[in-house]
Amino acid sequence: MSSNKEILLVNRPNDRKIGSHLFETREQDIPSPGKGEILIKQTYMSLDPAMLGWMSEDRESYIPPVELGEVMRSSGVGEVIESNNPDFSVGDKVMGMTGWREYLVSNGEGFNKLQPGITEEMALCVFALPGLTATTGLYNFGEPKEGETLVVTGAAGSVGSIVGQLAKADGLRVIGVVGSDEKADWIVNELGFDGAVNYKTDDLEAKLTELTPDKIDVFFENTGGPIQHHIFNRMNTHGRIVVCGMIADYQSENPAPGPNWIPLIKKRINVRGFAMPDHWGEVPQLVAKLSPYVQQGKIQYRSHMVEGIESAVEGLQMLFSGDNKGKMIVKL
Amino acid sequence: MSSNKEILLVNRPNDRKIGSHLFETREQDIPSPGKGEILIKQTYMSLDPAMLGWMSEDRESYIPPVELGEVMRSSGVGEVIESNNPDFSVGDKVMGMTGWREYLVSNGEGFNKLQPGITEEMALCVFALPGLTATTGLYNFGEPKEGETLVVTGAAGSVGSIVGQLAKADGLRVIGVVGSDEKADWIVNELGFDGAVNYKTDDLEAKLTELTPDKIDVFFENTGGPIQHHIFNRMNTHGRIVVCGMIADYQSENPAPGPNWIPLIKKRINVRGFAMPDHWGEVPQLVAKLSPYVQQGKIQYRSHMVEGIESAVEGLQMLFSGDNKGKMIVKL
Repeated sequence: MSSNKEILLVNRPNDRKIGSHLFETREQDIPSPGKGEILIKQTYMSLDPAMLGWMSEDRESYIPPVELGEVMRSSGVGEVIESNNPDFSVGDKVMGMTGWREYLVSNGEGFNKLQPGITEEMALCVFALPGLTATTGLYNFGEPKEGETLVVTGAAGSVGSIVGQLAKADGLRVIGVVGSDEKADWIVNELGFDGAVNYKTDDLEAKLTELTPDKIDVFFENTGGPIQHHIFNRMNTHGRIVVCGMIADYQSENPAPGPNWIPLIKKRINVRGFAMPDHWGEVPQLVAKLSPYVQQGKIQYRSHMVEGIESAVEGLQMLFSGDNKGKMIVKL
Repeated sequence: MSSNKEILLVNRPNDRKIGSHLFETREQDIPSPGKGEILIKQTYMSLDPAMLGWMSEDRESYIPPVELGEVMRSSGVGEVIESNNPDFSVGDKVMGMTGWREYLVSNGEGFNKLQPGITEEMALCVFALPGLTATTGLYNFGEPKEGETLVVTGAAGSVGSIVGQLAKADGLRVIGVVGSDEKADWIVNELGFDGAVNYKTDDLEAKLTELTPDKIDVFFENTGGPIQHHIFNRMNTHGRIVVCGMIADYQSENPAPGPNWIPLIKKRINVRGFAMPDHWGEVPQLVAKLSPYVQQGKIQYRSHMVEGIESAVEGLQMLFSGDNKGKMIVKL
């Protein structure tokens, strides 16, 4: 194959629906690296919930949207196949903001080599956005303490599954909210969570009450949706709520209202929204915090792979419908 | 007068309505101080929004409710008229948790003498709950910075008026939300706020937009009510929301929902509920923080006095209807 497929964003998801009408595939020659540059052949491309925001014309978001006609933004892993840059050798595996394309030229800025023993899958599932986000949210804002109870929504998702495993390793009681029995089974029987709520089939209040006899100290919110109110109502005094994602509401025209704030006063609760771009400067510390858990085998992960760059749109749709099982990755 | 009137709580405000049916007046002999005790004649009694919580059987609140048949809880100022305690002399003016009664006996614990130059009115308006609450909320959680914009609801109230004046003295743009033109006039023309929104008569969104050209960095919430959503929607990135009171919702059976949490992520906002009982240990530092502003004449206050212990119920009703102008005090 001597051509380079790229996928461009050509329409905005104004009705918040994701589909092929938003994108256009362009085929070009593989670019040549100039002085100081490298040519990367992308091998694994990450799909993340933040992408809906990147595609939308929302000037209030934390990073500017992708311009129409530009290659869709994404992170990914690739192999250096030509190098005019002394910092990189042919054969190096690198991770960075690659975009939806098969090949790209870069001066190397923002690309990091994978450490020995780190596979592409582990890089994207743990040491990329999911693991960094989980670590930031849990330790910068969640203040988890041994013996406390943590509830995480989107618990089988890329971020939620790591949050829960970190908290479990720290000695907390961990309950996860998921959208299928298969996911419930995975987080309880494979990851070791103390319990799971299936928000589609369980009696939410009853199940949550049963699973959290000491109520809830840390609420790590990845999804929004009706269960938010039930979790909010079971918070303990001095509880911490970390708001990381609201994927159930991102596609909604009229997002559901949140809870009334009276309990925030009565229970002196802290609610903190965060996003990774504020924390890029902390990445070395975050990796240092996360690595021992990984080395001790305490962080399991699973990826949901689709193949070929044209599968990216379908993969993104699965991410928002919740049909994926594990971190969404496009294998190129 | 040789008798001591006390007002007892005899019913709970289950419908959240305050009225004379909740209380009973008892007349007794003036008590005699025992060994190590003092007799205090209360002169000024404070009425505060927290009282509705104290009267209600809500085991989740931050301090236990007043038991039925007990004297209603309140803070106040009084004069020592008999003393068997070497730490207090007859004539000392003291502040503490006095309760709804004309005379009380205490071992002195929890009572502090007023510093020279501090009148009873100033003690209750500034150095009691209102000023300590304002100082805690603004400086522990609001992180005000010169040049930023702060919006405070209940801005003519006992806490809000101090929050606004502290922020003004610190070089912030300060906008207050009030419920009458008279209060708007007071906070702008007497206290020096940069603007006022009358939530009863103004077009909330238009007025708020006009008064906050650089949007809002700190939102100090004392009231709740529909304007909360408008203020929330105008928050800047990295904004801080301090939730101190929701007086508009305390009496409501179905408190209005809060805002959806998506903006908390997009703007990385922190929302913090707090209540003073967590901060009693910080009172010396809080007084030290607040005192220079008072000494430099930067904190004005006004009290709304009603006379006689039987007026306490009416005063409490005024506090919840917003008909008071300034800190509610019962003069005995």
